[in-house]
Amino acid sequence: MAGKPDKSRISETLAAVVRPTLLIDEARARANIERMAGKIRSSGVRFRPHFKTHQSAAIGEWFRDEGVRAITVSSLDMARYFAEHGWDDITVAFPTNARDMGTINALAEKITLGLLVDSIETIERLSEALEAPAHIWVEIDAGYGRTGVPWERAVDLFRHVSRIHNCEKLHFQGLLTHAGHTYHASSPDEIRDIYDATLARMRGLKRALEAAEFGPVEISVGDTPACALIEDFHGVDEVRPGNFVFFDLTQLSLGVCREEDIAVALACPVVAKYPERREIAIHGGAVHLSKEFLLREDGSKSFGAVALLQNDGWGKIIPDAYVDRVSQEHGLVRCPDALLQQITVGDLLVILPVHSCLTANLMQGYLTLDGTEIRMAGIAG
Amino acid sequence: MAGKPDKSRISETLAAVVRPTLLIDEARARANIERMAGKIRSSGVRFRPHFKTHQSAAIGEWFRDEGVRAITVSSLDMARYFAEHGWDDITVAFPTNARDMGTINALAEKITLGLLVDSIETIERLSEALEAPAHIWVEIDAGYGRTGVPWERAVDLFRHVSRIHNCEKLHFQGLLTHAGHTYHASSPDEIRDIYDATLARMRGLKRALEAAEFGPVEISVGDTPACALIEDFHGVDEVRPGNFVFFDLTQLSLGVCREEDIAVALACPVVAKYPERREIAIHGGAVHLSKEFLLREDGSKSFGAVALLQNDGWGKIIPDAYVDRVSQEHGLVRCPDALLQQITVGDLLVILPVHSCLTANLMQGYLTLDGTEIRMAGIAG
Repeated sequence: MAGKPDKSRISETLAAVVRPTLLIDEARARANIERMAGKIRSSGVRFRPHFKTHQSAAIGEWFRDEGVRAITVSSLDMARYFAEHGWDDITVAFPTNARDMGTINALAEKITLGLLVDSIETIERLSEALEAPAHIWVEIDAGYGRTGVPWERAVDLFRHVSRIHNCEKLHFQGLLTHAGHTYHASSPDEIRDIYDATLARMRGLKRALEAAEFGPVEISVGDTPACALIEDFHGVDEVRPGNFVFFDLTQLSLGVCREEDIAVALACPVVAKYPERREIAIHGGAVHLSKEFLLREDGSKSFGAVALLQNDGWGKIIPDAYVDRVSQEHGLVRCPDALLQQITVGDLLVILPVHSCLTANLMQGYLTLDGTEIRMAGIAG
Repeated sequence: MAGKPDKSRISETLAAVVRPTLLIDEARARANIERMAGKIRSSGVRFRPHFKTHQSAAIGEWFRDEGVRAITVSSLDMARYFAEHGWDDITVAFPTNARDMGTINALAEKITLGLLVDSIETIERLSEALEAPAHIWVEIDAGYGRTGVPWERAVDLFRHVSRIHNCEKLHFQGLLTHAGHTYHASSPDEIRDIYDATLARMRGLKRALEAAEFGPVEISVGDTPACALIEDFHGVDEVRPGNFVFFDLTQLSLGVCREEDIAVALACPVVAKYPERREIAIHGGAVHLSKEFLLREDGSKSFGAVALLQNDGWGKIIPDAYVDRVSQEHGLVRCPDALLQQITVGDLLVILPVHSCLTANLMQGYLTLDGTEIRMAGIAG
């Protein structure tokens, strides 16, 4: 595992930053991967991390170093990108877009492809048009209310699985869910409760299917909040968290990571100062950070937390400093007096993102602290 | 000017869409450009449209067809991109990021470069490090509260202009403002009032500077809400709107465009249907639409309006249908019953964006209705 680069190298890297730049602390990201891979491995469960967070072949290699061979992505185009970079076991954890049979067939021909279905229409379309075998997961809505067959509608599930069994090229793999409602939990205990409830529902459906001789039925779960908290994944077959590689302010606010686990941060040039309103303008706006926000205790929005560069990367979050608003390229940072006095136009501020997946997607690249540029794929759609 | 392509060509284009795709109605965009260029020209004022909205050399040519020769961008990287595509008079309407003197000097050497300053630190840095002449605008905060010298602080302004005059390479051009508070106006009349107040403040400062023999002093203004409403730009020297080329739901909600002026829309595959909760899932989420939202009358958020494809592009906004929530790739559309019955998994829905600039920036490309792909620059930062 890569250690921290030496401090003079880091200082040199940071001094050379001239535009909004997504810094990545490789040692932190690798530690996040190692920790998650370790506990999933100890549970005897398959680790199929979601690569939508980083979208980068280079960072994918950090997972490979931890023994990861199977991955999750969120679009067919992302699957194609990673298939081109040596990944041969990919699940697209998004309701299959059967308009794009060209990409689906190219992938199914080349790799072990996992697809999600939650409707008869999509199963029918795949039955007609799939040219090579694919692993089919039925997505279950175990309480989140986004996509998937509602867990209470076992009749629909049986109908879907039965139809899948009738098509030779569709290999029924099991039941997959994303319990994204953990993001709305008010405490780690509530996240654990959601995990337990999700698992109970998924296992109930698995047992029912297996009793009807539709087995074996695997179970795949995997939101970062729960996966960051749970130590023992007994009872599932596969775990698919993604965000944990970087974490962010959202995960910090949920209490599932430590500040020092956050592995990406946006270095932003300070372009103006307004002491009379205690604000600093940075080059770092909605096209860098996204418009994702968290609510502060006083009900105001925060589009990012603020830290200073230091010779080993970036420092602690500065209390009472935050990105108050963003427009396309502008960020306006509310500053306590001490920070205002410390910062000069032309300096850099570091912004910890509210949602690292969206920030990474916008930035399309990273700079490691030792000065290596990591470009992303430019995966459209 | 390009007319609409014929209907069979459009049907063919739309039928071939398999992934989230930003459709552009070229005839509408060209009409938007023609209308704005026409009225600014009639006022005898320079039109320096903001290209941050479309970020595309190809769409830039549509402006050139209307006689545009001078443009605005929002970052040095965007300036470099358009300079590489034949634009030789570019203002970077963002407080100058003097960390990036390399790009600034390369641009100043090659083109007529306009830069914004609002601090002595940046003026000093440019004085020291600028290697070729640049036109310098002092940014004025005429009431918006984002960036610029507050219009009440004439002392600061005089100090800045005086310092600019002392540097041979800094050619003082005038005063520039962005009255972005028009976006928070509750009626077109309030937008007109903001425009009038802005102009009065800018002209007051101009007269004061000219009386002190700092003249001539130009005035540059240009937010889309005001520019879309105002017919006579007498009293300013330059107008810089950007968003009007596409418009969007935000402009529609402000009452400054018609629905049929909106020139971009995201075609999204329908991937699932949930009749029991009157929702449709589309491939079209935060990485396509952004997380910008408007509040509906009932206080709920809308991340986009919904229309259907038709043989001349897309149809009228469907009342009571809207994108209720987005995650990275998912959009969840609330549907009235009639729409639910009409739409099948595998169809396309068209989503009109809340903020076309952010959607275009995320999509990095367009598809015209006659099937031409327009790629954007991939301008990082």
